[in-house]
Amino acid sequence: MIMDDPEFLSCGWLSNPGPNHEIVLSTRVRIARNVKGFPFSHWASTGELARLVSSCSAAVRKTSLLRDSEEIHLEEVNDLDLSFLRERHQISSEMVHSQNQRSVFVSNDQRVAAMVAEEDHLRLQVLQPGLDLKSAWGICNTLDDEISKHLSFAYCERLGYLTACPTNVGTGLRCSVMVHLPALVMTRQIQKMINAVSQLGMTVRGPSGEGSEIKGNLFQISNQVTLGVTEDEIIERLSNLTEQVIEMEAKAISQLMDEAEEDIEDRVFRAYSILTSARKLNSKETLELLSPVRLGIRAGLLKEASLNAINEVFLCSRPAHLQKKAGREMGERERDIFRAQFIRDRFKPSAC
Amino acid sequence: MIMDDPEFLSCGWLSNPGPNHEIVLSTRVRIARNVKGFPFSHWASTGELARLVSSCSAAVRKTSLLRDSEEIHLEEVNDLDLSFLRERHQISSEMVHSQNQRSVFVSNDQRVAAMVAEEDHLRLQVLQPGLDLKSAWGICNTLDDEISKHLSFAYCERLGYLTACPTNVGTGLRCSVMVHLPALVMTRQIQKMINAVSQLGMTVRGPSGEGSEIKGNLFQISNQVTLGVTEDEIIERLSNLTEQVIEMEAKAISQLMDEAEEDIEDRVFRAYSILTSARKLNSKETLELLSPVRLGIRAGLLKEASLNAINEVFLCSRPAHLQKKAGREMGERERDIFRAQFIRDRFKPSAC
Repeated sequence: MIMDDPEFLSCGWLSNPGPNHEIVLSTRVRIARNVKGFPFSHWASTGELARLVSSCSAAVRKTSLLRDSEEIHLEEVNDLDLSFLRERHQISSEMVHSQNQRSVFVSNDQRVAAMVAEEDHLRLQVLQPGLDLKSAWGICNTLDDEISKHLSFAYCERLGYLTACPTNVGTGLRCSVMVHLPALVMTRQIQKMINAVSQLGMTVRGPSGEGSEIKGNLFQISNQVTLGVTEDEIIERLSNLTEQVIEMEAKAISQLMDEAEEDIEDRVFRAYSILTSARKLNSKETLELLSPVRLGIRAGLLKEASLNAINEVFLCSRPAHLQKKAGREMGERERDIFRAQFIRDRFKPSAC
Repeated sequence: MIMDDPEFLSCGWLSNPGPNHEIVLSTRVRIARNVKGFPFSHWASTGELARLVSSCSAAVRKTSLLRDSEEIHLEEVNDLDLSFLRERHQISSEMVHSQNQRSVFVSNDQRVAAMVAEEDHLRLQVLQPGLDLKSAWGICNTLDDEISKHLSFAYCERLGYLTACPTNVGTGLRCSVMVHLPALVMTRQIQKMINAVSQLGMTVRGPSGEGSEIKGNLFQISNQVTLGVTEDEIIERLSNLTEQVIEMEAKAISQLMDEAEEDIEDRVFRAYSILTSARKLNSKETLELLSPVRLGIRAGLLKEASLNAINEVFLCSRPAHLQKKAGREMGERERDIFRAQFIRDRFKPSAC
């Protein structure tokens, strides 16, 4: 079973730092597609869903990117594995809670996922480390082209691709970058940035997407508008905007280091020392500690740790990842103790 | 000048751990005496004070314990040095703020002090590491005997020694122990202990004596009653009481380690890691961090640090001590940075 394969469980895709990885953790691009002649997933009967899944799966299996991937049938997967896939953004939160037949294909390198019978019939998604919208879009576009040779998508000349939720109509494209902006937060410039982003048709959210709380100074910036613009325009605009945000954040760091280096050092070393010596750590505190540690690495203060280690801990210290690693379900207290142990081990001088 | 002598500035007397030093930091015994024929210090004229200081100093210089000590004339000492002597408990807070002629003799080993023209004409004090009331009282009593050969003390058959404040009348003896009781605080037994102590004619206060806030789980237990009991009875009662408190605290630690070892470990290692990596530390936080570190050493969790190092940091990280060490006056921010540096150096593996 792939959900117990150590290679599948590893966080390999994070270990190659992408462009601008000091500030941009990851890039995500996904498109929503629906198959002509089938009702939207929510309204489909069990029989229609079964036929839909079968058609989509057959088409996905013919693509160069996903032909070797195992199809994970989510109705056969337990709650822990569903949470694990969700923590990796390989399925949507919609897919976690649905009771319907639904599945996901994940590429061997973990970067590409095709979700079948999601809110939309198909969601094709590419994750890349760092800021890499163009290449992520390129991969997604190729996958879309290959699948559309075998499936006919619901498309209308005037609107573009039709989707279950009207906010996706048009290109069906949602792309986002996960950025770490501690200096903009500390210098109180973050609200100005969020306001400016909104005026450009983009949205800023917490690290887990819509409705999620902002934690650890992590923000997800994504396009709001999918209609009346081309895919290339969306990608171009978000790329340019992200580059501006990177510049603002870098300036804010220099400003902080000039004005209050000791205060920054104090925060950085305290956070790193707690992270590497605590015996109990919950998810929220872990994110809050990782943030100044990341800042310290960027500012050249912390030589002991690497951004790779931070990114890995960021993902692998989440509840389902820890339980998969431990090979058993754990309550909150046991998890907090296990998380602290995992992080101490990961940051041991020899492991970094 | 003795106030700049490195040997005088060192914290040597702390480096020999005394009896029960795991829980009892130090023992202090002092007696109040006044010289017949002089008004109490507050009411004495400048001329009377000058004659009083001269008589007392002459008598102190004849004692075996203080004959080699330099007399420190407090009216010639700057504010920083006054604060330094106060932090060491070698002068009373009364003596810091007075404008009158007054002086103090401190023995070479820092343990014995004779304060001249304090609230009382003479206060003789002995400090010992650990719980050592009998030997401290023995030294103090000897000093008293030697001085009384050369001075006639105000004494009345019915009341005993007469003192400026009626709370000291009788024996003029105040003895106290500084105890560290984190486990009694964590197990919420501390209030019960304080109530029990009060019923025995003793008082529990913060670490800096009367009116001081409780910080770092440090408590000063002292006798309240000085009248109608003998010196030996006071010493005996406080010794027995302290031994009971030690036993309660030790039991509370075992209980904590049985019931919540991970929680204790978590507190201990977090505190130690912050203490040894922060770049800014204020006095209050330092005390709050030292407490779980001390607990961790006692519980056998922390092998890296020693109680000696903790005791030294406890005293030497106080504001005036830091400024004497730095050789200059420092503002609060500079002091906090210097304190953090001092503590990091003190806890370096090679220094412990």
